[in-house]
Amino acid sequence: MNESPKILINCDMGESYGPFKVGNDEALMPLIDACNIACGFHAGDPWHMEKTIDLALEHKVLIGAHPGYPDLQGFGRRPMHIPAKELSAIIKYQIAALKGMLESKGGNLHHVKPHGALYNAMANDIALAKTVIEAIHAIDSTLPLMGLAGSCLQQYAESHQVPFIPEAFADRYYEPHGMLRSRTLANAVIVDPEKATQQVIQIAYQQHVSTYEGPLIPLAAQSFCIHGDNPSAVNMLDVLRNVLNDHSLLTQYILNED
Amino acid sequence: MNESPKILINCDMGESYGPFKVGNDEALMPLIDACNIACGFHAGDPWHMEKTIDLALEHKVLIGAHPGYPDLQGFGRRPMHIPAKELSAIIKYQIAALKGMLESKGGNLHHVKPHGALYNAMANDIALAKTVIEAIHAIDSTLPLMGLAGSCLQQYAESHQVPFIPEAFADRYYEPHGMLRSRTLANAVIVDPEKATQQVIQIAYQQHVSTYEGPLIPLAAQSFCIHGDNPSAVNMLDVLRNVLNDHSLLTQYILNED
Amino acid sequence: MNESPKILINCDMGESYGPFKVGNDEALMPLIDACNIACGFHAGDPWHMEKTIDLALEHKVLIGAHPGYPDLQGFGRRPMHIPAKELSAIIKYQIAALKGMLESKGGNLHHVKPHGALYNAMANDIALAKTVIEAIHAIDSTLPLMGLAGSCLQQYAESHQVPFIPEAFADRYYEPHGMLRSRTLANAVIVDPEKATQQVIQIAYQQHVSTYEGPLIPLAAQSFCIHGDNPSAVNMLDVLRNVLNDHSLLTQYILNED
Amino acid sequence: MNESPKILINCDMGESYGPFKVGNDEALMPLIDACNIACGFHAGDPWHMEKTIDLALEHKVLIGAHPGYPDLQGFGRRPMHIPAKELSAIIKYQIAALKGMLESKGGNLHHVKPHGALYNAMANDIALAKTVIEAIHAIDSTLPLMGLAGSCLQQYAESHQVPFIPEAFADRYYEPHGMLRSRTLANAVIVDPEKATQQVIQIAYQQHVSTYEGPLIPLAAQSFCIHGDNPSAVNMLDVLRNVLNDHSLLTQYILNED
Repeated sequence: MNESPKILINCDMGESYGPFKVGNDEALMPLIDACNIACGFHAGDPWHMEKTIDLALEHKVLIGAHPGYPDLQGFGRRPMHIPAKELSAIIKYQIAALKGMLESKGGNLHHVKPHGALYNAMANDIALAKTVIEAIHAIDSTLPLMGLAGSCLQQYAESHQVPFIPEAFADRYYEPHGMLRSRTLANAVIVDPEKATQQVIQIAYQQHVSTYEGPLIPLAAQSFCIHGDNPSAVNMLDVLRNVLNDHSLLTQYILNED
Repeated sequence: MNESPKILINCDMGESYGPFKVGNDEALMPLIDACNIACGFHAGDPWHMEKTIDLALEHKVLIGAHPGYPDLQGFGRRPMHIPAKELSAIIKYQIAALKGMLESKGGNLHHVKPHGALYNAMANDIALAKTVIEAIHAIDSTLPLMGLAGSCLQQYAESHQVPFIPEAFADRYYEPHGMLRSRTLANAVIVDPEKATQQVIQIAYQQHVSTYEGPLIPLAAQSFCIHGDNPSAVNMLDVLRNVLNDHSLLTQYILNED
Repeated sequence: MNESPKILINCDMGESYGPFKVGNDEALMPLIDACNIACGFHAGDPWHMEKTIDLALEHKVLIGAHPGYPDLQGFGRRPMHIPAKELSAIIKYQIAALKGMLESKGGNLHHVKPHGALYNAMANDIALAKTVIEAIHAIDSTLPLMGLAGSCLQQYAESHQVPFIPEAFADRYYEPHGMLRSRTLANAVIVDPEKATQQVIQIAYQQHVSTYEGPLIPLAAQSFCIHGDNPSAVNMLDVLRNVLNDHSLLTQYILNED
Repeated sequence: MNESPKILINCDMGESYGPFKVGNDEALMPLIDACNIACGFHAGDPWHMEKTIDLALEHKVLIGAHPGYPDLQGFGRRPMHIPAKELSAIIKYQIAALKGMLESKGGNLHHVKPHGALYNAMANDIALAKTVIEAIHAIDSTLPLMGLAGSCLQQYAESHQVPFIPEAFADRYYEPHGMLRSRTLANAVIVDPEKATQQVIQIAYQQHVSTYEGPLIPLAAQSFCIHGDNPSAVNMLDVLRNVLNDHSLLTQYILNED
């Protein structure tokens, strides 16, 4: 069991915008290892970004940039077709904004996880992914990209020495082809904390996951996402952390040693 | 004449947004010493910011951040009342975004010049100015602020050791009380290149300026702004540079020595 | 008691934006007489506007337009200075959009209630108020304006034959000078349903209101606002409606007879 | 030649946004029969909409609504995937806003022409087109849709009794398959006024068009678009109108008789 990777539990955060509140960052932050902070395009505004940075630093949670499409009304979940040069600039801008604000507080940016429709498109569209990867590396060539575990993107990253953190989902069902079960279908989201924990353990130890009404498929991941808007998120994180602690799987990142 | 300060000619740039074109950056950039690049809130988008950075680096023009109010429809020219904490985050965000994009190209940020209604409000409202200055210094405590020459802000900056670049306007008439003649009145803008050049020379050598139908008043400045949307901007810069060259007043900044 | 006016209980609604949820419209709509629907500038998007229209028509609730400043990030609560011609167009645009969508469902627009910083500014700034009133009347000269009871605006409206619905607040404390106690102070909001109900009854019957640690002052109103984001809103409306029913004060608007 | 249809020359207008100027509406308006006014989502703001309405009414030019995707930064030219219900609301909102503002000036809305990426997508995607058509008819079931001549959309409209104005382009080259030559290729835009006029006459009389380095293909249209940002637009309209006058092809719409 020594070979099993330490696990990084992450949540998307800082997605409130002005008076529009999203998620429950205060309650979740103490329970996670890493957060992905929205950068103002699909969600988030500078003031909420700053508060989320402060909260993450206080709880010694690793901080990633969470850039998205420029589409607040669609929360970055609507596919958009943006020319590569413009997309590149959009990504650099968002990462640089968060990185600079974070460094002004003495923190360091740990990774970049693209958001929503951009995240999904990058899983399979390598030309798009290369545009985003080059933009990330223009800002900092050592910044790891967090992306969908088991995707074409992961294959590309690993064969091209792109620092990559494969991510699986604790609270979403998988389909036999390895993609997440669509939110437009019933039983897309796992709300039972025990079931979610079981899925994490299964992926961490067996490098496989049970699919929805289908077979076991291979899946290896270093980071696990729990959605902040999952109604069981706090409960789920409590249960999960206890079990991972028992398995000595929990990463104990200390920011200063990072 | 040795004591006369070298002169920094600056223009606001990068204010195009998507397909909406503003100004004539390509023609003006070779003729100026410093540019202030819009950061995406009152104008500018990431792609135009990147193109403007490239253009400025190519012409060895000093680069300042030009943050503004979050008001694209009003171009940051409408006064807004934003709580200090939120305004602080808005300023940090914009500066960090530009600074990070610039550094990814090997450049360095030279100064910060707030835009429009924010620039004007800071000239007299010291509480507001302190919020902005603290935000600038959170990003980089050595970054100079460019602001209105002869204003309360300049007095405050100088008595509090805030790095400050006092700015005068080449192409705007002054009123006897030292403010710019309002654009809502006739004869607010100087379009005659000779007249604008004369005003710059007058301020640079005599530390005074002639006011509109009024007396000579004291005014000292290190940087002179020419508005990119002045119809004579290119002409004016040609004439001005020739005269300044003859007077050996022209700053010859070289980015690597900065 | 015959002379006491029927009471119109209103709530601001339709303020969600894309995935950003605001308020609890489904629970509140059955309990109110009138709603003010956000029109997409300070909050609301077309899809939420349409859903809110449907919900209001289903519950036979009167529908007002709730236009605001073009400031989503500030939720229309930040004072802005917009030239009169532009503000006029902004108001017409928002009212026309809601009115057209409403009429496409067979409904009729009942009134206009400006939002947030615009509402507050109009209470005292008659020049501003005239701009908004003319914009409203350009769309429909019979549309009543809902505004702050006891304000300069009400005086102006009544002396100039502007259809006007004076509005008081059920869940906010008043100051001795007749303005609402600022949200920046403690005890600005009333959360006790009994206390809120008592305040409504007091205003309705006595045309006076108790002020915060001050004297009774005159105040007459035809409509009472309860804020959808008041944590006691549903409870408060239940209590209030029962008491008003007992007093036969409750308006029983039927849309077709309006 | 009696059977040749009268010709409606149209331009997209009102696409300025705040201080961002687009096009040359004042010069073009006297030269056209119909304009399509942007409605604030891909371009345009309420104040420019109002000015454009006034200008069109002054010159007795027919007014169409020109709704687009909610993407100012991309000018509505980036394909977006928006759920049907949300798109429907977005279309209704934009049309209602323009229609209400127009009617407040005594004008009447003549047609709806979707913009940019939405226009192009509707030409071939009938499911999408149905969503938009239903939204248009919800506002006014007699409002004609203006769309690409010779497209699947035209076929659908004609076989389903949807009022439809087939539109061809005066200043764009056609490809043999009937689509416009892409702007990403050389020779996409016609700038020679004689050539553009020739193309209009060819389509109007022969119901055919010469394609770029290809054969003559069938094409019938009732309205012809000239792009306001074509550098020869004013010239082109002068030449075109003279020739059309000689051919008695020019529509002489008078708004009151419409």
